[in-house]
Amino acid sequence: MTHATLCADKAVVQLTFSDGATGTYPFLWLRDNDPAGFHPDTKERVADLTAIPLDIRVTEALIEDTDLSLTWEDETATRYSLDWLAAHRPGHRLADPAKTGVTTWRADMVADAVPRLHAADVLASDAALRDWLMATQRSGLSVIDGLPDDREAGIDVAKRIGFLRETNFGVTFEVKSKPNPNNLAYTPIALPLHTDLTNQELPPGFQFLHCLANEATGGGSLFSDGFAVAEDLRTQDPEAFELLSTISVPFRFHDGEYDIRSRKKVITLDEDGALKEICFNAHIASILDIDPDLMPQYYRAYRTFMQMSRDPAYLVTFKLKAGEMVIFDNRRVLHGREAFDPNTGYRHLRGCYVDRGEFESRLRVLAR
Amino acid sequence: MTHATLCADKAVVQLTFSDGATGTYPFLWLRDNDPAGFHPDTKERVADLTAIPLDIRVTEALIEDTDLSLTWEDETATRYSLDWLAAHRPGHRLADPAKTGVTTWRADMVADAVPRLHAADVLASDAALRDWLMATQRSGLSVIDGLPDDREAGIDVAKRIGFLRETNFGVTFEVKSKPNPNNLAYTPIALPLHTDLTNQELPPGFQFLHCLANEATGGGSLFSDGFAVAEDLRTQDPEAFELLSTISVPFRFHDGEYDIRSRKKVITLDEDGALKEICFNAHIASILDIDPDLMPQYYRAYRTFMQMSRDPAYLVTFKLKAGEMVIFDNRRVLHGREAFDPNTGYRHLRGCYVDRGEFESRLRVLAR
Repeated sequence: MTHATLCADKAVVQLTFSDGATGTYPFLWLRDNDPAGFHPDTKERVADLTAIPLDIRVTEALIEDTDLSLTWEDETATRYSLDWLAAHRPGHRLADPAKTGVTTWRADMVADAVPRLHAADVLASDAALRDWLMATQRSGLSVIDGLPDDREAGIDVAKRIGFLRETNFGVTFEVKSKPNPNNLAYTPIALPLHTDLTNQELPPGFQFLHCLANEATGGGSLFSDGFAVAEDLRTQDPEAFELLSTISVPFRFHDGEYDIRSRKKVITLDEDGALKEICFNAHIASILDIDPDLMPQYYRAYRTFMQMSRDPAYLVTFKLKAGEMVIFDNRRVLHGREAFDPNTGYRHLRGCYVDRGEFESRLRVLAR
Repeated sequence: MTHATLCADKAVVQLTFSDGATGTYPFLWLRDNDPAGFHPDTKERVADLTAIPLDIRVTEALIEDTDLSLTWEDETATRYSLDWLAAHRPGHRLADPAKTGVTTWRADMVADAVPRLHAADVLASDAALRDWLMATQRSGLSVIDGLPDDREAGIDVAKRIGFLRETNFGVTFEVKSKPNPNNLAYTPIALPLHTDLTNQELPPGFQFLHCLANEATGGGSLFSDGFAVAEDLRTQDPEAFELLSTISVPFRFHDGEYDIRSRKKVITLDEDGALKEICFNAHIASILDIDPDLMPQYYRAYRTFMQMSRDPAYLVTFKLKAGEMVIFDNRRVLHGREAFDPNTGYRHLRGCYVDRGEFESRLRVLAR
């Protein structure tokens, strides 16, 4: 049985729910969130806060069946479901079905342990789609196999999540050796571990690389979990962690058509101090512009992160086969490539991105 | 005449340029930025920092013509143009042609003073395009007129800047009264001042609303400069400014297909404490979840911002005509709409977004 207590002196209603949980609901919050103040179709808030006095007062609070019923000094009556009030206790974040958990990995996650699903299942089944997204969020890395030899096949799977993120490289991009490349990915040289497009205000969220051909000698894929590197750095070298998570540095990509610049910290933490994002890309690191007095210690920290991310202790490596697609969280997992010899065979990956926003939205909708 | 001094004890080269400016260049920075370490086509960095010892030393520094010429202890020789060194002095940000200046406005910017350009000029001339972008960055608000009665006409102008930002509402969207709306914009009711899509991790940058018809009674457009409101709040009510610029609050949009959530501060500052972004949208403000003890003061601050933004002292209002397009910085300028009566005539705006990244890139390329 839920109990309601009107605390006029504190201008709050206190609730003790039947499971023992308690909630403190300021009068103004209750009036601001009157269910009648939301549009019935769009669910958007239409009530206007400026029409509510800041010192508005509840005069009576009653539990009626499964609702809290309030009477206000202006004789308005409002009503809230207790379940809704329990889910929205001030001071507690709303449960988020898009946060399904992250597990960092190191070289102990051998290539065979990378989550693997079949394209046909993910295309046909929402349950398989959800399994795939949860696995991809957990490890930041997964493989889809069984893709037909069709340029659109990988894109079709990515679009099960949502629309693609366009960038200056297009809505999709072709990773193969090209004449006059504007990006190192389009050469046959080795690509050291990096995250993509750290020069963008919002680097792309999830990256999809559909392997159409990988017949050349070399060209294996490398991955390391930037969150694992950051976690270990936090423990082993707190000074380096502090520098990389507080000092922003410039990134820049420029070619004939674009000049896109952004500053980023190598390690971005969220408001609770948890790891949110890794931005690491030596190719498009612009000219370091921080205070020269800070440079010796910053370079040491940055170079330590770089060395750790490449250490075999953190690496998972495998060579993609035609019909496979690798998916990774581009804001967490660093990826790289061994050099390949374009004279020994053809190598062609087709890529695209879907941002975190669409990925998380899909997880929430699938959890309904 | 530029002078170079090798400071072996500090591991830096000091330069005094002919204009009297000085620069401090750590040895490691100089080696990391050896021009030979960048790919000739992609201009990306290919030299590997892990191959450079942290304590690498310069043994000789000479000015030769317009270059600085260095000899290293491992007998490597490197060479840098003095102009490049002057532009990239450590501790100084690289000049950015995309930052052309911001001027805040209040109601003293009457509708006639809103920058106005002709579509034909912006389509035909890079100089006019640049003028338009600089004016739009300066005031956060401009109008393009002379658009043909063609659904694509506004889009074509927007694409002069770059590709469009796709959202859950599509690549473009139609602002008109619709049955079963999923957004208040798609009803005929008044829209209080807001910025769009604050529920997205990156709210869209610049918004374009091409007026195809505006024959209904009502339906005028309202704008207020969120940076002006924030500037004045900072002076007049520093406690409110502090709360709005440090406490993040939840935003959420959900319909049958999407559930997109993000936390935002109403006022986001950049690393130097300057105004970077305003996020204000009461329609999609989710249920406030901050500590209930903070709510009275937070609500007071939030409601003060809301009231100021609507105060006639900040408002510019005008009614768009068919063939006009309004453009505004959606991360700075709040926009709103008077109610209209769909029985008195047709009202139809066609909208799209281009993000700050593409906008700024275009400004940089046009400045070359």
